[in-house]
Amino acid sequence: MSEAAQTLDGWYCLHDFRSIDWSSWKLLTSDERQAAIHEFQGLLEKWNGVQEAEKGSHALYSIVGQKADFMMMVLRPTMEELNEIELEFNKTKLAEFTVPTYSYVSVVELSNYLAGDSDEDPYQNPHVRARLYPKLPEAKYSCFYPMDKRRQGNDNWYMLSMDERKSMMRSHGLIGRSYAGKVKQIITGSVGFDDYEWGVTLFSDDVLQFKKLVYEMRFDEVSARYGEFGSFFVGNLLIPSKLDSFLHVN
Amino acid sequence: MSEAAQTLDGWYCLHDFRSIDWSSWKLLTSDERQAAIHEFQGLLEKWNGVQEAEKGSHALYSIVGQKADFMMMVLRPTMEELNEIELEFNKTKLAEFTVPTYSYVSVVELSNYLAGDSDEDPYQNPHVRARLYPKLPEAKYSCFYPMDKRRQGNDNWYMLSMDERKSMMRSHGLIGRSYAGKVKQIITGSVGFDDYEWGVTLFSDDVLQFKKLVYEMRFDEVSARYGEFGSFFVGNLLIPSKLDSFLHVN
Amino acid sequence: MSEAAQTLDGWYCLHDFRSIDWSSWKLLTSDERQAAIHEFQGLLEKWNGVQEAEKGSHALYSIVGQKADFMMMVLRPTMEELNEIELEFNKTKLAEFTVPTYSYVSVVELSNYLAGDSDEDPYQNPHVRARLYPKLPEAKYSCFYPMDKRRQGNDNWYMLSMDERKSMMRSHGLIGRSYAGKVKQIITGSVGFDDYEWGVTLFSDDVLQFKKLVYEMRFDEVSARYGEFGSFFVGNLLIPSKLDSFLHVN
Amino acid sequence: MSEAAQTLDGWYCLHDFRSIDWSSWKLLTSDERQAAIHEFQGLLEKWNGVQEAEKGSHALYSIVGQKADFMMMVLRPTMEELNEIELEFNKTKLAEFTVPTYSYVSVVELSNYLAGDSDEDPYQNPHVRARLYPKLPEAKYSCFYPMDKRRQGNDNWYMLSMDERKSMMRSHGLIGRSYAGKVKQIITGSVGFDDYEWGVTLFSDDVLQFKKLVYEMRFDEVSARYGEFGSFFVGNLLIPSKLDSFLHVN
Amino acid sequence: MSEAAQTLDGWYCLHDFRSIDWSSWKLLTSDERQAAIHEFQGLLEKWNGVQEAEKGSHALYSIVGQKADFMMMVLRPTMEELNEIELEFNKTKLAEFTVPTYSYVSVVELSNYLAGDSDEDPYQNPHVRARLYPKLPEAKYSCFYPMDKRRQGNDNWYMLSMDERKSMMRSHGLIGRSYAGKVKQIITGSVGFDDYEWGVTLFSDDVLQFKKLVYEMRFDEVSARYGEFGSFFVGNLLIPSKLDSFLHVN
Repeated sequence: MSEAAQTLDGWYCLHDFRSIDWSSWKLLTSDERQAAIHEFQGLLEKWNGVQEAEKGSHALYSIVGQKADFMMMVLRPTMEELNEIELEFNKTKLAEFTVPTYSYVSVVELSNYLAGDSDEDPYQNPHVRARLYPKLPEAKYSCFYPMDKRRQGNDNWYMLSMDERKSMMRSHGLIGRSYAGKVKQIITGSVGFDDYEWGVTLFSDDVLQFKKLVYEMRFDEVSARYGEFGSFFVGNLLIPSKLDSFLHVN
Repeated sequence: MSEAAQTLDGWYCLHDFRSIDWSSWKLLTSDERQAAIHEFQGLLEKWNGVQEAEKGSHALYSIVGQKADFMMMVLRPTMEELNEIELEFNKTKLAEFTVPTYSYVSVVELSNYLAGDSDEDPYQNPHVRARLYPKLPEAKYSCFYPMDKRRQGNDNWYMLSMDERKSMMRSHGLIGRSYAGKVKQIITGSVGFDDYEWGVTLFSDDVLQFKKLVYEMRFDEVSARYGEFGSFFVGNLLIPSKLDSFLHVN
Repeated sequence: MSEAAQTLDGWYCLHDFRSIDWSSWKLLTSDERQAAIHEFQGLLEKWNGVQEAEKGSHALYSIVGQKADFMMMVLRPTMEELNEIELEFNKTKLAEFTVPTYSYVSVVELSNYLAGDSDEDPYQNPHVRARLYPKLPEAKYSCFYPMDKRRQGNDNWYMLSMDERKSMMRSHGLIGRSYAGKVKQIITGSVGFDDYEWGVTLFSDDVLQFKKLVYEMRFDEVSARYGEFGSFFVGNLLIPSKLDSFLHVN
Repeated sequence: MSEAAQTLDGWYCLHDFRSIDWSSWKLLTSDERQAAIHEFQGLLEKWNGVQEAEKGSHALYSIVGQKADFMMMVLRPTMEELNEIELEFNKTKLAEFTVPTYSYVSVVELSNYLAGDSDEDPYQNPHVRARLYPKLPEAKYSCFYPMDKRRQGNDNWYMLSMDERKSMMRSHGLIGRSYAGKVKQIITGSVGFDDYEWGVTLFSDDVLQFKKLVYEMRFDEVSARYGEFGSFFVGNLLIPSKLDSFLHVN
Repeated sequence: MSEAAQTLDGWYCLHDFRSIDWSSWKLLTSDERQAAIHEFQGLLEKWNGVQEAEKGSHALYSIVGQKADFMMMVLRPTMEELNEIELEFNKTKLAEFTVPTYSYVSVVELSNYLAGDSDEDPYQNPHVRARLYPKLPEAKYSCFYPMDKRRQGNDNWYMLSMDERKSMMRSHGLIGRSYAGKVKQIITGSVGFDDYEWGVTLFSDDVLQFKKLVYEMRFDEVSARYGEFGSFFVGNLLIPSKLDSFLHVN
């Protein structure tokens, strides 16, 4: 058996994608719609409070194309909190006018492939903590996709030695690092939690950098031979002040 | 032909995943909702009686993400009983407000890969009986996924000799055993009953152990080369006393 | 080109799986439901008449899990009759409260892999006729799954010589024969009729025998290297006298 | 690069599969249903006029199993006409009671694999024209399936030389020819038009010949190694005079 | 790691496919339908203004077969504008009578495989600009399909050297060039934006050229060994003046 990678695990993460049922939404009176938006904004304010208290974080993006109209990404210390947030949203008025289209359950993860040796408890290291319990950036664009490491014929990631994997992951990490300042990446692990092994969430103020980063990485052996990708979702930041116009109908 | 593994088979098992149609549920009066919850609680009490009489067992978990809102897992001595339970639930008021999202039909299974030689009738062994006819633990978290052993090119589990399979399963079992006390695992066989060959249900009071266990096993040859996995479902224990608040809407 | 197997073909076969829309069904008055059940029982009686006249056969099973609530399996001498039966059922009151979930179109088939040489016309042989035009057993349990023979890389059934296939099919048949008296198997061919090449319908009074039989066969080269399986459906015999309670709602 | 096969292309072809929403259909008054049937028959008469003028052809079959209730197959000289026919049907009353279940867009095609050398313009050859612009036979049964030529590892049709492909296609054609008089086959090309590369539509007065033909061909290298098949649909001729009883409900 | 291809990226692109819910559309009064058409025409006029100002482009095609009734293809300088256009359409009256069936998010892309060496800034080259910011042609027919470059066993595009890829892409380009004047092709990149790596949109006044082009290319190694294709959509130009009759119902 190959040596398993060790991981550090932070906040639990729910990506929740929804489409809006515009036809039904229009059937409400303007007052009813305003009340529904107001109720949802109250929820967002509650989440803001949690974020300010550094007990979690969240992000809201409108999604381009028919896969969804918006995505809520929420980080929390426990799986119960994710469940409660989902439940609370599902019971709002606004939720009655949304259709669930995709979701992903995972936990913020750092692997030891790129870690140096140390006796230190990494969970006490402030740099590590900032990555395990991150405040999601308010970047203009976000991209999400789930992925697996391939186990197919001669391309079987899990049959490689730790050294082979480590060496490939370092090369992979170098590409990522060359995008520092342009793209922020949050890796969440989902083995045992959802259908793929990882979720990748990217943030940037230049949407083209998502394409450049993912395309460049695809030529790297880790992706070229061992990457299996699920659906890609891309979207624009939906700041609370734009929520009114986003949901406004005549 | 390779020698087939022998199995011991216990209680039949139904995993039944449901989403809640919150919009319709809200249309009921508070009294109607209360009556529906009460009727479902009556069903759960009946199942409790069966469990106390050691004629079966069951568990109820809320599920995180859009795959389902809750899962009922039920063990019974016969396939007819599973069918009756399913039918009885389907006829309740609450069921009118649920949408079936996934189900799995299987039977609790022990294989002879890890068994020693013995003249004893294993069905009379109390340790074996406790595993074939288990009382499901009230762990805080549960994880379910179906799986196959791969039959693909050079990675064909069913073309391996009994000795090769036995040796790999022992190594696999060692990983499982290292999680003893942290994760309880129930394997149910579904060849001839459902689309995958096995269902795996994990229970733990620490949800992160699911990820650690499944990830570590993935580096083991049995999973790395021969495991094919279906969807993963993860959830939080839904104790009857929390049912009211779980289903409460304004 | 490899020599194609020769087949004997009997009655045409429709497997028709349905779920029940319990919410709508409950909206009927008790009298309306009774009339719908009565109409369906009339259909079953008509089918019984055909079966007694040996002009066809049929079976009715409730299905465990969410894939369906019940399955109708119908055998008839012509494809037109299957179409008429389907059409007649679709026009009943009960059908308005069912949702089609899966169906399979095929024809009872015997292959020449296991046949000896003979100058006899097999269609005149009473033993062969009993298998081509069978009366379906009223076994307590039924299992259905469609399957293909694989054509993939080095595992290509259709590139094997007739002798290789014959030898493997004989070994496969031996396993089947060891279940004689425990499991009755009806093979229907569906090449050119439906998405898989064959349908397999098993009948038994011990549901565990389905798992034992299919699992043991999976270690046989024919299945291990060449079998591709679709969905598995398992169910309990639904005798007409239980129809009332099966469909009874408050 | 391998030499591409040359094709002759005839009429454009739309296969349009529909299920009937019987519950809603029953809600109409008998007069409304009669009007809807009458309107559809008017459409069919118009199509008959086109067929008599040799400006197209069409066929109507009821489909066995849940994939559809009926199929309309329409041939026309232009893609615009297919679109207009589809649009005209979609606007009928009957269409309101149908659910689209599958469709296929293609063009009648003859390849040069089996052609001899000639200086003649094949589009002027009456035998070729009869095949490119065919009048669909009123056979009792029809079978439709889409297919690809495989491009997978060592089984890559498009990497074979023209001579290898030609030789295999000839052998394949011989099987087809042995069914002359029993099965009529219309090949339509769909590269660039729909998800598979070809559609195959078979017609016969003996439905068993579909199974025999497709099964025998499967042992031929062209199918065994290079054929990838989509869904199979089989049905019975639905002559206009049977339309009334087909759509009759109480 | 192989050298990654460099790309030039132009306008962002949304393909939005919709089916029409004819049954509901008919329920409107003629005046209501006229108002909905008028509103949509207003949107198209706005898009025309953008196109005349060379700030974007768009095309409208009716689609043949059940995959959709029409496609809107829109090009804009930013991802936000795509999102706004989508949102604005979704809020129209017409949109209430459409069902989203497929969409694709990408960006007009030129790769450096076919580029010569130059010190020039390609984004200042008028020929390059005309391709990155194109005015979509009003061709009679359009064809769209998404595609990947394969990463499978020995057929792994991303493990090839830049020279190997360049040489194959040149050969591929030669085929494309032989269709110059007959087919116009717009390649959009979607790595990081949608599920496939590229979208291909073809325009022609002769629909058969789509089939000839795609089929001929399939014999080229780039497609034969390395192409993975998604769904194909084909349609007829829907000019605004035909919109009335397209949407006219009695």
